[in-house]
Amino acid sequence: MPPKVEARLQALEDREAIRDLIASYGPLADSGASDALSQLWVEDGRYAVSGIGEAKGRAAIAALIDGPTHRTLMADGCAHMLGPVTITLNGDSATARGHSVVFRATGQGGFEAHRVSANRWQLARTADGWRVTARENALLDGAEAARALLATA
Amino acid sequence: MPPKVEARLQALEDREAIRDLIASYGPLADSGASDALSQLWVEDGRYAVSGIGEAKGRAAIAALIDGPTHRTLMADGCAHMLGPVTITLNGDSATARGHSVVFRATGQGGFEAHRVSANRWQLARTADGWRVTARENALLDGAEAARALLATA
Amino acid sequence: MPPKVEARLQALEDREAIRDLIASYGPLADSGASDALSQLWVEDGRYAVSGIGEAKGRAAIAALIDGPTHRTLMADGCAHMLGPVTITLNGDSATARGHSVVFRATGQGGFEAHRVSANRWQLARTADGWRVTARENALLDGAEAARALLATA
Repeated sequence: MPPKVEARLQALEDREAIRDLIASYGPLADSGASDALSQLWVEDGRYAVSGIGEAKGRAAIAALIDGPTHRTLMADGCAHMLGPVTITLNGDSATARGHSVVFRATGQGGFEAHRVSANRWQLARTADGWRVTARENALLDGAEAARALLATA
Repeated sequence: MPPKVEARLQALEDREAIRDLIASYGPLADSGASDALSQLWVEDGRYAVSGIGEAKGRAAIAALIDGPTHRTLMADGCAHMLGPVTITLNGDSATARGHSVVFRATGQGGFEAHRVSANRWQLARTADGWRVTARENALLDGAEAARALLATA
Repeated sequence: MPPKVEARLQALEDREAIRDLIASYGPLADSGASDALSQLWVEDGRYAVSGIGEAKGRAAIAALIDGPTHRTLMADGCAHMLGPVTITLNGDSATARGHSVVFRATGQGGFEAHRVSANRWQLARTADGWRVTARENALLDGAEAARALLATA
C-alpha cells in the first residue's frame, strides 16, 4: 500500500475512533455501565467536573457513576447528551472540544437542562486503541474557566 | 486495490453512511417530509416510540409524520435534535445508540425540552445502501427500559 | 494509487473536514474567538440569523461575536450547541443541514433553551480547505421559512 494511502486511512480511522469513543460516554453513563465507562479512560486517566470534583484513575471514575448523585439522577430520569466534537489530531495524541448537556426529568412530564458544560478531552493512542487521558468539564455559567476549555490551545 | 485497503475504506464509508442516515432524521421530521423520512427505513421497518406507539412499515412510519400529533408540534414550532451516535458495525448489519430531544416552542419566545429519549437503531446494508430495520425510542424518565436501550447488547 | 481509492478517500476527507468545520463553530462562539470564527467562512461569506440580521463578510461576522448581544450572553453563561449535520457533497461545493440550540444560564443554577434553530450551510472547497459560503439560521417557532431550511433542495 502506498505510504500516503496508509497515512490518510489512519487519520480517518483515528478521528472515527475518537468520535465514537466520546459518543459512547453518554449511553454508558445513562445505562449505569460504570466499569465500561471507566475504560474509556487510560488506567490513570483524569476526569475533572466543575462543582463536583476530580476523579483520578478508572476506579475513581467508575465510582462517580456508581455514587449517589449519579444514581439519583438515573432514577429521576436523565440524559447525558454530548454534542459533536471538533478534533485536533497530533500523531499519537489528540484534543477534542465540545458541549455536553445533562437533561433531568422534572417529574411533571418534561425535562430541564440541569447542567450545560464545556468539555476538553485529551486523548492518547494506546495498545487498546484511543483512550481518554483527561476530560475537563465546566459549567458554562459565565465563568471564564469554562469558556477557556473551548478555546484552541 | 489491496483487500485490506478496500475493507478499511468500506468500514469508514459504512460508518459515514449510517451517521448521515441518522443525522437526516431530524431535518426530515421537522420539515414534514414524511415520504422521504419513511425511506430511511427498510420497507417493513419498525419504529417504536414509548408512549406513542409502534409503526410497522414505511406507510405507517410516514403516517406518524403526517398525523395530528406531529403536525401540531410543527405548527407550534419544534426541533427533533439527535445527538451523535455510537455505532457498532457487524458486516451487513449495525447497531447505533444515542439520545434525541424534541424541543417545542413555548409560544412565549423560548423553548422547552418536551421529550428526551434513548434510542437504539438497528440497521442493515441493502441494495439501496444502509437502512433502518428498527428504531426503538423511550423517554428517559427513570424507566429501566429506556436505560436498557443505551446499554451494549 | 488507483483513481477509485483516491476518490473514495477524498470524499471521506471532505465530509470529515466539513463536519469538523461546523463542529468548531460552537466552541469558537462560546470562547469569544471572533477572528478565528469568522475564518470558518470565505472572505465574502454570509451569515443570516432570523430576528438578528445578516452579516456579509468576515469582518461583519466577527462583529456579531464581538457585539453586545453575544458578549452579554457569554457573561450570563451560554452554550451554542449544534447537532450533527447531514451533508450533501457535490464536487467542490456542499450543503449541510442541522439544528442548533443556544442554552443560556438562568442565574438560578439552571439553563434554558433560549434559541432553537434550523440551519442550512453552503460550503465550498477553497485553497485553504472547506469554508462556509453561507449559513442561514432561523428559529423553529412554527414559521415555514425555518422548516424550509431543513428540507432537501
